Amino acid sequence: MELVTRLLAGDRRSLARIISLIEDDGRDAHKALAELYPHTGRAHIVGITGAPGTGKSTLVNALAKGYRRRDLTVGIVAVDPSSPFSGGALLGDRIRMRDLAGDAGVFIRSMATRGTLGGLARATADVVLALDAAGFDRVIVETVGVGQAEVEIAGAAHSVVVVAAPGMGDEVQAIKAGVMEIGDVFAVNKSDREGADHAVMAIKMMQGLTPAAPPAGSADAGWEPPVIKTVATRGDGVDELLEAIEAHAAYLHESHLIQRRERDRVTAVLETILQVELLARLRLRVPPERMQALVEQVLDRELDPYTAVDQLLQLGEAPCS
Amino acid sequence: MELVTRLLAGDRRSLARIISLIEDDGRDAHKALAELYPHTGRAHIVGITGAPGTGKSTLVNALAKGYRRRDLTVGIVAVDPSSPFSGGALLGDRIRMRDLAGDAGVFIRSMATRGTLGGLARATADVVLALDAAGFDRVIVETVGVGQAEVEIAGAAHSVVVVAAPGMGDEVQAIKAGVMEIGDVFAVNKSDREGADHAVMAIKMMQGLTPAAPPAGSADAGWEPPVIKTVATRGDGVDELLEAIEAHAAYLHESHLIQRRERDRVTAVLETILQVELLARLRLRVPPERMQALVEQVLDRELDPYTAVDQLLQLGEAPCS
Repeated sequence: MELVTRLLAGDRRSLARIISLIEDDGRDAHKALAELYPHTGRAHIVGITGAPGTGKSTLVNALAKGYRRRDLTVGIVAVDPSSPFSGGALLGDRIRMRDLAGDAGVFIRSMATRGTLGGLARATADVVLALDAAGFDRVIVETVGVGQAEVEIAGAAHSVVVVAAPGMGDEVQAIKAGVMEIGDVFAVNKSDREGADHAVMAIKMMQGLTPAAPPAGSADAGWEPPVIKTVATRGDGVDELLEAIEAHAAYLHESHLIQRRERDRVTAVLETILQVELLARLRLRVPPERMQALVEQVLDRELDPYTAVDQLLQLGEAPCS
Repeated sequence: MELVTRLLAGDRRSLARIISLIEDDGRDAHKALAELYPHTGRAHIVGITGAPGTGKSTLVNALAKGYRRRDLTVGIVAVDPSSPFSGGALLGDRIRMRDLAGDAGVFIRSMATRGTLGGLARATADVVLALDAAGFDRVIVETVGVGQAEVEIAGAAHSVVVVAAPGMGDEVQAIKAGVMEIGDVFAVNKSDREGADHAVMAIKMMQGLTPAAPPAGSADAGWEPPVIKTVATRGDGVDELLEAIEAHAAYLHESHLIQRRERDRVTAVLETILQVELLARLRLRVPPERMQALVEQVLDRELDPYTAVDQLLQLGEAPCS
């Protein structure tokens, strides 16, 4: 594909067009990704997640500038699930782009994919592949860290940064939803506000409470996740945060744990694609009027949902020739 | 099933045991649900969603008490995705139960299901069915309204309440993630705090900005979603909120829109079950070592993820006899 060749040669416009193909999710996207794939595996992928209002986006911008000062290129994927205004993601891009404008070493893309759950995870993983193939040294995936889907998307990165902020009511509540185990580095942003030390302590206390034997792919016993205070708007603590991320990357490579992370990542990506593909294939095989008839039977309580699904699956079996 | 007969007769312990079966997700759960299903369809299902720190849970408790004063029974499903402490959901239950203790007309269950995304949505839908069959007049589904999965789960209800709170930084950011379109009623909780009127105005402004033609299943042109100020801890505005929910329920029935909501609900439930079942069946058909071998090929960049999934799907085709 001409577009892939140009992307690999460093053309940013081709990268943007391939990302659009991915969002449209046609056959062309799969073809492009198959061609890009052998050129991936070089970027270190950083997931950044936190509740709304923690200043994640400002922190990501500050980190990007820090990487640029170190002559590393950065691709950013901001996952903003189903913003009600179709222009929302685009507007956000523009505001953020202004800040980092004119620098070809930074590329930002917001994902506001609607549609199915698996769809967002799959599209994000595909955009990460495209940025990786395009040669960015670091790829940052930024998500709202409250929902299960969003936590999983960020958690699929090599190094995961969990962002909290003081004065958001109950910090513990804000960071509890499954994110404690996935954090390799914790940032308490807006730490010029009252309660920053309390937030740091709350995180350290929760770290002490998390199970001693972490599940596969989570922070390992050999790495103690640091808690770093930042004020992203002023750049305070951003260098320290960046160093912590880089230290974690080095740790993963030295301990060879990077292989395990990669294996977990690839398995998760394959399952996401599988789930979406399986449903798409079934839809092609089951006539819409049959599907509709089953919905009506369930509505009339003639059939329970599980029996209806069994019937659908039988209808969807591949025909034997 | 003995357990189902006892649940239908009003036995709360049998209800709790069936919910445990659902969470374990065995064949027994499917059997129980098939038997329960003809007895469902009576409850009005209320989804309540909002960012962490808005005081959702306190508001849900206050609403439950309001319903009890009107002699209506209430089942509550609190969706708390993957809390890091396995005891977390249970502890939450206990604290909340104390508040409503000794009242057989209220039943609270927290769902802290880990595992796949579809798994949480499916288990929640199944628990709603069990509560419906057990005869509760209102079933409240409470979720953290920031994640895509959580918004979808709450959005599958008949009437959806979106909860915001003043002084949480950017209210607009806190409520933007796909929840504006699904709100039938908006509550600004903690409205004794500064900024309550600002939050109400922000919501009304966003309502004005949402597209004129709402998508199927969303608030209809004939219903203007009210914005109600509450202080859940004092009970202020709770009656008004309850009346608004009931008015929306009446509106759905009078306009016959309830049928459309039910159809959307059932379609979403079927798709969720389908997605989980499809993956489970594929897993049974593909030998784990074949799956592992494909993961290794993708890791070694010999195969791209889409080609690997194609091969998996071929392996997973039903054998022809």
